[in-house]
Amino acid sequence: MTAQTIQDVKEKIRSVENFPKEGIIFRDITTALKDAETLRVMIDYLCDEFKDVKIDYIAGIESRGFIFGMPMAYKMDAGFVPIRKPHKLPAATYSQEYALEYGTDKIEIHQDALPQGANVLIVDDLLATGGTAEAACKLVKKTGANLVGIAFLIELEDLNGREKLKDCGRVVSMLKY
Amino acid sequence: MTAQTIQDVKEKIRSVENFPKEGIIFRDITTALKDAETLRVMIDYLCDEFKDVKIDYIAGIESRGFIFGMPMAYKMDAGFVPIRKPHKLPAATYSQEYALEYGTDKIEIHQDALPQGANVLIVDDLLATGGTAEAACKLVKKTGANLVGIAFLIELEDLNGREKLKDCGRVVSMLKY
Repeated sequence: MTAQTIQDVKEKIRSVENFPKEGIIFRDITTALKDAETLRVMIDYLCDEFKDVKIDYIAGIESRGFIFGMPMAYKMDAGFVPIRKPHKLPAATYSQEYALEYGTDKIEIHQDALPQGANVLIVDDLLATGGTAEAACKLVKKTGANLVGIAFLIELEDLNGREKLKDCGRVVSMLKY
Repeated sequence: MTAQTIQDVKEKIRSVENFPKEGIIFRDITTALKDAETLRVMIDYLCDEFKDVKIDYIAGIESRGFIFGMPMAYKMDAGFVPIRKPHKLPAATYSQEYALEYGTDKIEIHQDALPQGANVLIVDDLLATGGTAEAACKLVKKTGANLVGIAFLIELEDLNGREKLKDCGRVVSMLKY
Protein backbone atom coordinates (compact mmCIF):
# COMPACT_ATOMS: atom_id res chain seq x y z
CA MET A 1 0.00 0.00 0.00
CA THR A 2 1.42 3.40 -0.95
CA ALA A 3 1.99 6.40 1.31
CA GLN A 4 -0.59 8.17 -0.86
CA THR A 5 -3.25 5.56 -0.05
CA ILE A 6 -2.58 6.00 3.66
CA GLN A 7 -2.78 9.77 3.25
CA ASP A 8 -6.11 9.41 1.43
CA VAL A 9 -7.53 7.42 4.34
CA LYS A 10 -6.22 9.98 6.82
CA GLU A 11 -8.08 12.70 4.96
CA LYS A 12 -11.33 10.78 5.46
CA ILE A 13 -10.92 10.90 9.26
CA ARG A 14 -12.72 13.94 10.65
CA SER A 15 -11.03 15.89 13.42
CA VAL A 16 -13.51 17.29 15.96
CA GLU A 17 -12.12 19.86 18.39
CA ASN A 18 -13.02 19.87 22.09
CA PHE A 19 -14.66 16.43 22.11
CA PRO A 20 -15.31 14.69 24.46
CA LYS A 21 -13.92 17.65 26.43
CA GLU A 22 -12.08 21.00 26.09
CA GLY A 23 -8.65 20.76 24.52
CA ILE A 24 -9.05 17.29 22.99
CA ILE A 25 -8.99 16.74 19.23
CA PHE A 26 -11.19 13.72 18.59
CA ARG A 27 -10.33 11.58 15.56
CA ASP A 28 -13.75 10.65 14.19
CA ILE A 29 -13.56 7.42 12.21
CA THR A 30 -17.24 7.48 11.20
CA THR A 31 -16.48 9.63 8.16
CA ALA A 32 -13.99 6.99 6.96
CA LEU A 33 -16.25 4.02 7.71
CA LYS A 34 -19.15 5.41 5.71
CA ASP A 35 -17.03 5.45 2.57
CA ALA A 36 -17.15 1.88 1.23
CA GLU A 37 -13.78 2.08 -0.51
CA THR A 38 -12.01 3.57 2.51
CA LEU A 39 -13.57 0.91 4.72
CA ARG A 40 -12.11 -1.78 2.45
CA VAL A 41 -8.66 -0.18 2.34
CA MET A 42 -8.49 0.06 6.15
CA ILE A 43 -9.48 -3.57 6.72
CA ASP A 44 -7.19 -4.87 3.96
CA TYR A 45 -4.23 -2.85 5.27
CA LEU A 46 -4.51 -4.23 8.78
CA CYS A 47 -4.94 -7.80 7.53
CA ASP A 48 -1.98 -7.51 5.16
CA GLU A 49 0.31 -6.55 8.03
CA PHE A 50 -0.20 -10.04 9.46
CA LYS A 51 -0.44 -12.07 6.26
CA ASP A 52 2.77 -13.97 7.07
CA VAL A 53 1.16 -15.60 10.14
CA LYS A 54 -1.88 -17.87 10.42
CA ILE A 55 -4.19 -15.93 12.72
CA ASP A 56 -6.63 -18.34 14.41
CA TYR A 57 -8.57 -15.73 16.39
CA ILE A 58 -9.15 -12.02 16.36
CA ALA A 59 -9.84 -10.56 19.82
CA GLY A 60 -11.68 -7.24 19.49
CA ILE A 61 -11.84 -4.72 22.32
CA GLU A 62 -15.34 -3.25 22.97
CA SER A 63 -16.76 -1.49 21.11
CA ARG A 64 -14.72 0.01 18.29
CA GLY A 65 -12.41 -2.98 18.25
CA PHE A 66 -15.49 -4.91 17.12
CA ILE A 67 -15.80 -2.57 14.15
CA PHE A 68 -12.38 -3.45 12.77
CA GLY A 69 -11.95 -6.90 14.29
CA MET A 70 -14.98 -8.62 12.82
CA PRO A 71 -14.34 -7.91 9.13
CA MET A 72 -10.69 -8.84 9.70
CA ALA A 73 -11.80 -12.18 11.17
CA TYR A 74 -14.14 -12.69 8.20
CA LYS A 75 -11.39 -11.94 5.70
CA MET A 76 -8.72 -13.97 7.52
CA ASP A 77 -10.98 -16.98 8.13
CA ALA A 78 -10.43 -16.60 11.85
CA GLY A 79 -12.79 -16.83 14.81
CA PHE A 80 -13.77 -13.67 16.67
CA VAL A 81 -13.57 -13.23 20.45
CA PRO A 82 -14.94 -10.09 22.14
CA ILE A 83 -13.11 -8.45 25.05
CA ARG A 84 -15.86 -6.59 26.88
CA LYS A 85 -16.64 -4.22 29.70
CA PRO A 86 -17.71 -5.87 32.98
CA HIS A 87 -21.06 -7.70 33.31
CA LYS A 88 -21.55 -8.10 29.55
CA LEU A 89 -20.13 -11.61 29.06
CA PRO A 90 -22.50 -14.27 30.43
CA ALA A 91 -20.13 -17.16 31.26
CA ALA A 92 -17.04 -17.37 33.52
CA THR A 93 -14.52 -14.61 32.74
CA TYR A 94 -10.99 -13.46 33.42
CA SER A 95 -10.95 -9.82 34.41
CA GLN A 96 -8.17 -7.23 34.13
CA GLU A 97 -8.03 -3.78 35.69
CA TYR A 98 -6.33 -0.80 34.05
CA ALA A 99 -5.73 2.82 35.00
CA LEU A 100 -7.77 5.72 33.67
CA GLU A 101 -6.94 9.40 34.04
CA TYR A 102 -9.00 9.31 37.24
CA GLY A 103 -9.58 5.89 38.81
CA THR A 104 -9.59 2.49 37.14
CA ASP A 105 -11.69 0.41 34.78
CA LYS A 106 -11.89 -3.26 33.87
CA ILE A 107 -12.24 -5.47 30.82
CA GLU A 108 -13.09 -9.16 30.60
CA ILE A 109 -12.73 -12.21 28.37
CA HIS A 110 -14.50 -15.57 28.59
CA GLN A 111 -12.24 -18.13 30.25
CA ASP A 112 -13.09 -20.68 27.55
CA ALA A 113 -12.79 -18.22 24.65
CA LEU A 114 -9.38 -19.30 23.32
CA PRO A 115 -7.66 -22.68 23.08
CA GLN A 116 -4.12 -23.17 24.43
CA GLY A 117 -1.47 -22.08 21.94
CA ALA A 118 -3.85 -20.62 19.33
CA ASN A 119 -2.53 -17.59 17.41
CA VAL A 120 -4.39 -14.48 18.50
CA LEU A 121 -4.39 -10.95 17.13
CA ILE A 122 -5.90 -8.18 19.27
CA VAL A 123 -7.67 -5.36 17.41
CA ASP A 124 -8.74 -1.89 18.51
CA ASP A 125 -9.37 1.40 16.77
CA LEU A 126 -7.02 3.67 18.71
CA LEU A 127 -3.70 3.42 20.54
CA ALA A 128 -3.57 6.31 23.02
CA THR A 129 -1.92 5.73 26.42
CA GLY A 130 -2.02 1.97 25.86
CA GLY A 131 -3.73 1.06 29.14
CA THR A 132 -6.66 -0.81 27.63
CA ALA A 133 -4.49 -2.60 25.08
CA GLU A 134 -2.03 -3.70 27.76
CA ALA A 135 -4.92 -5.08 29.82
CA ALA A 136 -6.25 -6.91 26.75
CA CYS A 137 -2.81 -8.50 26.20
CA LYS A 138 -2.77 -9.76 29.78
CA LEU A 139 -6.23 -11.27 29.31
CA VAL A 140 -5.26 -13.12 26.13
CA LYS A 141 -2.13 -14.47 27.83
CA LYS A 142 -4.18 -15.64 30.84
CA THR A 143 -6.15 -17.94 28.53
CA GLY A 144 -2.94 -19.70 27.47
CA ALA A 145 -3.25 -18.60 23.84
CA ASN A 146 -0.31 -17.26 21.82
CA LEU A 147 -0.48 -13.48 21.38
CA VAL A 148 0.83 -12.64 17.89
CA GLY A 149 0.32 -8.88 18.17
CA ILE A 150 -2.06 -5.94 18.16
CA ALA A 151 -3.47 -3.95 15.28
CA PHE A 152 -4.79 -0.38 15.62
CA LEU A 153 -6.25 1.87 13.00
CA ILE A 154 -4.87 5.00 14.68
CA GLU A 155 -1.84 5.66 16.90
CA LEU A 156 -1.43 8.90 18.86
CA GLU A 157 2.35 8.84 18.95
CA ASP A 158 2.83 11.62 21.52
CA LEU A 159 1.19 9.50 24.20
CA ASN A 160 3.82 6.73 23.95
CA GLY A 161 1.27 3.95 24.31
CA ARG A 162 3.62 1.64 22.41
CA GLU A 163 5.97 1.67 25.42
CA LYS A 164 3.42 -0.30 27.43
CA LEU A 165 3.10 -2.97 24.73
CA LYS A 166 6.66 -4.31 24.60
CA ASP A 167 5.59 -7.83 25.57
CA CYS A 168 2.62 -7.91 23.25
CA GLY A 169 4.15 -9.12 19.99
CA ARG A 170 3.95 -7.09 16.80
CA VAL A 171 2.27 -3.71 17.29
CA VAL A 172 0.88 -2.23 14.07
CA SER A 173 -1.01 1.00 13.37
CA MET A 174 -2.14 2.35 10.03
CA LEU A 175 -2.51 6.09 10.72
CA LYS A 176 -0.11 8.04 12.92
CA TYR A 177 -0.90 11.40 14.52
CA MET B 1 -28.84 -22.38 2.84
CA THR B 2 -30.37 -25.56 4.22
CA ALA B 3 -32.40 -25.97 7.41
CA GLN B 4 -29.56 -28.20 8.61
CA THR B 5 -27.03 -25.35 8.24
CA ILE B 6 -29.25 -23.06 10.27
CA GLN B 7 -29.66 -25.78 12.90
CA ASP B 8 -25.86 -26.21 13.05
CA VAL B 9 -25.43 -22.50 13.74
CA LYS B 10 -28.14 -22.61 16.40
CA GLU B 11 -26.25 -25.37 18.17
CA LYS B 12 -23.20 -23.10 18.39
CA ILE B 13 -25.17 -20.49 20.35
CA ARG B 14 -24.75 -21.08 24.08
CA SER B 15 -27.82 -20.67 26.29
CA VAL B 16 -26.94 -19.23 29.69
CA GLU B 17 -29.70 -19.38 32.30
CA ASN B 18 -30.45 -16.51 34.68
CA PHE B 19 -28.30 -13.92 32.86
CA PRO B 20 -28.38 -10.95 33.12
CA LYS B 21 -31.03 -11.71 35.76
CA GLU B 22 -33.17 -14.50 37.26
CA GLY B 23 -35.52 -16.17 34.82
CA ILE B 24 -33.84 -14.96 31.62
CA ILE B 25 -32.21 -17.38 29.18
CA PHE B 26 -29.38 -15.44 27.54
CA ARG B 27 -28.45 -16.43 23.98
CA ASP B 28 -24.67 -16.15 23.99
CA ILE B 29 -23.36 -15.53 20.48
CA THR B 30 -19.68 -15.58 21.52
CA THR B 31 -19.52 -19.37 21.15
CA ALA B 32 -20.71 -19.03 17.53
CA LEU B 33 -18.42 -16.10 16.71
CA LYS B 34 -15.29 -17.87 17.85
CA ASP B 35 -15.86 -20.62 15.31
CA ALA B 36 -14.49 -19.27 12.01
CA GLU B 37 -16.79 -21.35 9.82
CA THR B 38 -19.92 -20.45 11.80
CA LEU B 39 -18.94 -16.79 11.68
CA ARG B 40 -18.74 -17.00 7.89
CA VAL B 41 -22.08 -18.81 7.57
CA MET B 42 -23.87 -16.19 9.73
CA ILE B 43 -22.52 -13.22 7.78
CA ASP B 44 -23.13 -14.85 4.39
CA TYR B 45 -26.70 -15.80 5.33
CA LEU B 46 -27.64 -12.27 6.34
CA CYS B 47 -26.04 -10.77 3.23
CA ASP B 48 -27.73 -13.29 0.92
CA GLU B 49 -31.14 -12.27 2.22
CA PHE B 50 -30.59 -8.85 0.63
CA LYS B 51 -28.64 -9.81 -2.47
CA ASP B 52 -31.46 -8.63 -4.77
CA VAL B 53 -30.99 -4.99 -3.63
CA LYS B 54 -27.97 -2.70 -3.87
CA ILE B 55 -27.25 -1.83 -0.24
CA ASP B 56 -25.31 1.45 -0.08
CA TYR B 57 -24.93 1.60 3.70
CA ILE B 58 -25.15 -0.73 6.65
CA ALA B 59 -26.26 1.01 9.85
CA GLY B 60 -25.15 -1.03 12.88
CA ILE B 61 -26.69 -0.57 16.32
CA GLU B 62 -24.17 -0.37 19.20
CA SER B 63 -22.51 -2.61 20.08
CA ARG B 64 -23.38 -6.06 18.80
CA GLY B 65 -24.83 -4.58 15.64
CA PHE B 66 -21.24 -3.52 14.91
CA ILE B 67 -20.18 -7.18 15.15
CA PHE B 68 -22.47 -8.29 12.33
CA GLY B 69 -22.81 -5.02 10.45
CA MET B 70 -19.16 -4.38 9.65
CA PRO B 71 -18.33 -7.67 7.93
CA MET B 72 -21.63 -7.37 6.03
CA ALA B 73 -20.59 -3.90 4.85
CA TYR B 74 -17.18 -5.27 3.85
CA LYS B 75 -18.73 -8.14 1.90
CA MET B 76 -21.46 -6.02 0.28
CA ASP B 77 -19.12 -3.16 -0.67
CA ALA B 78 -21.21 -0.78 1.39
CA GLY B 79 -20.30 2.00 3.79
CA PHE B 80 -20.84 1.51 7.53
CA VAL B 81 -22.68 3.94 9.80
CA PRO B 82 -22.80 3.41 13.58
CA ILE B 83 -25.96 4.11 15.58
CA ARG B 84 -24.67 4.79 19.08
CA LYS B 85 -25.62 5.47 22.65
CA PRO B 86 -25.73 9.17 23.67
CA HIS B 87 -22.52 11.25 23.89
CA LYS B 88 -20.45 8.86 21.77
CA LEU B 89 -20.79 10.51 18.36
CA PRO B 90 -18.73 13.71 18.14
CA ALA B 91 -20.60 15.73 15.47
CA ALA B 92 -24.24 16.92 15.24
CA THR B 93 -26.70 14.04 15.79
CA TYR B 94 -30.34 13.10 15.52
CA SER B 95 -31.53 11.43 18.70
CA GLN B 96 -34.38 9.00 19.29
CA GLU B 97 -35.84 7.85 22.59
CA TYR B 98 -37.25 4.38 23.18
CA ALA B 99 -38.92 2.60 26.09
CA LEU B 100 -37.13 0.14 28.34
CA GLU B 101 -38.76 -2.15 30.90
CA TYR B 102 -38.24 0.67 33.41
CA GLY B 103 -37.70 4.15 32.00
CA THR B 104 -36.32 5.14 28.62
CA ASP B 105 -33.04 5.19 26.71
CA LYS B 106 -31.76 6.96 23.61
CA ILE B 107 -29.75 6.22 20.49
CA GLU B 108 -28.16 8.62 18.03
CA ILE B 109 -26.95 8.91 14.45
CA HIS B 110 -24.79 11.60 12.85
CA GLN B 111 -26.99 14.04 10.94
CA ASP B 112 -24.62 13.89 7.97
CA ALA B 113 -24.15 10.11 8.07
CA LEU B 114 -26.39 9.16 5.15
CA PRO B 115 -27.14 10.84 1.81
CA GLN B 116 -30.76 11.44 0.71
CA GLY B 117 -32.28 8.38 -0.91
CA ALA B 118 -29.37 6.00 -0.27
CA ASN B 119 -30.34 2.37 0.35
CA VAL B 120 -29.75 1.51 4.01
CA LEU B 121 -29.91 -1.79 5.85
CA ILE B 122 -30.00 -1.73 9.67
CA VAL B 123 -28.22 -4.58 11.46
CA ASP B 124 -28.42 -5.82 15.05
CA ASP B 125 -27.78 -9.13 16.77
CA LEU B 126 -31.13 -9.63 18.50
CA LEU B 127 -34.78 -8.78 17.92
CA ALA B 128 -36.51 -8.88 21.31
CA THR B 129 -39.29 -6.35 22.03
CA GLY B 130 -38.21 -4.29 19.01
CA GLY B 131 -37.89 -0.96 20.83
CA THR B 132 -34.29 -0.27 19.87
CA ALA B 133 -34.78 -1.39 16.27
CA GLU B 134 -37.87 0.79 15.89
CA ALA B 135 -35.88 3.79 17.18
CA ALA B 136 -33.07 2.98 14.76
CA CYS B 137 -35.57 2.94 11.87
CA LYS B 138 -36.85 6.36 12.85
CA LEU B 139 -33.28 7.69 12.93
CA VAL B 140 -32.46 6.38 9.46
CA LYS B 141 -35.67 7.89 8.09
CA LYS B 142 -34.87 11.25 9.69
CA THR B 143 -31.70 11.45 7.59
CA GLY B 144 -33.77 11.17 4.40
CA ALA B 145 -32.18 7.88 3.39
CA ASN B 146 -34.22 4.93 2.06
CA LEU B 147 -34.63 2.18 4.65
CA VAL B 148 -34.51 -1.18 2.86
CA GLY B 149 -34.90 -3.32 5.96
CA ILE B 150 -33.39 -4.76 9.11
CA ALA B 151 -31.31 -7.90 9.60
CA PHE B 152 -31.01 -9.70 12.94
CA LEU B 153 -29.07 -12.82 13.79
CA ILE B 154 -31.62 -13.88 16.41
CA GLU B 155 -35.35 -13.27 16.82
CA LEU B 156 -37.18 -14.05 20.07
CA GLU B 157 -40.57 -14.69 18.49
CA ASP B 158 -42.63 -14.71 21.72
CA LEU B 159 -41.86 -11.05 22.30
CA ASN B 160 -43.54 -9.95 19.05
CA GLY B 161 -40.87 -7.36 18.25
CA ARG B 162 -41.70 -7.71 14.56
CA GLU B 163 -45.05 -6.01 15.23
CA LYS B 164 -43.23 -2.74 15.94
CA LEU B 165 -41.30 -2.91 12.66
CA LYS B 166 -44.14 -2.86 10.13
CA ASP B 167 -42.90 0.37 8.52
CA CYS B 168 -39.27 -0.68 8.46
CA GLY B 169 -39.02 -2.58 5.17
CA ARG B 170 -37.92 -6.21 5.02
CA VAL B 171 -37.29 -7.71 8.47
CA VAL B 172 -35.02 -10.76 8.38
CA SER B 173 -33.69 -13.00 11.16
CA MET B 174 -31.56 -16.11 10.83
CA LEU B 175 -32.28 -17.95 14.09
CA LYS B 176 -35.72 -18.08 15.70
CA TYR B 177 -36.37 -18.94 19.35
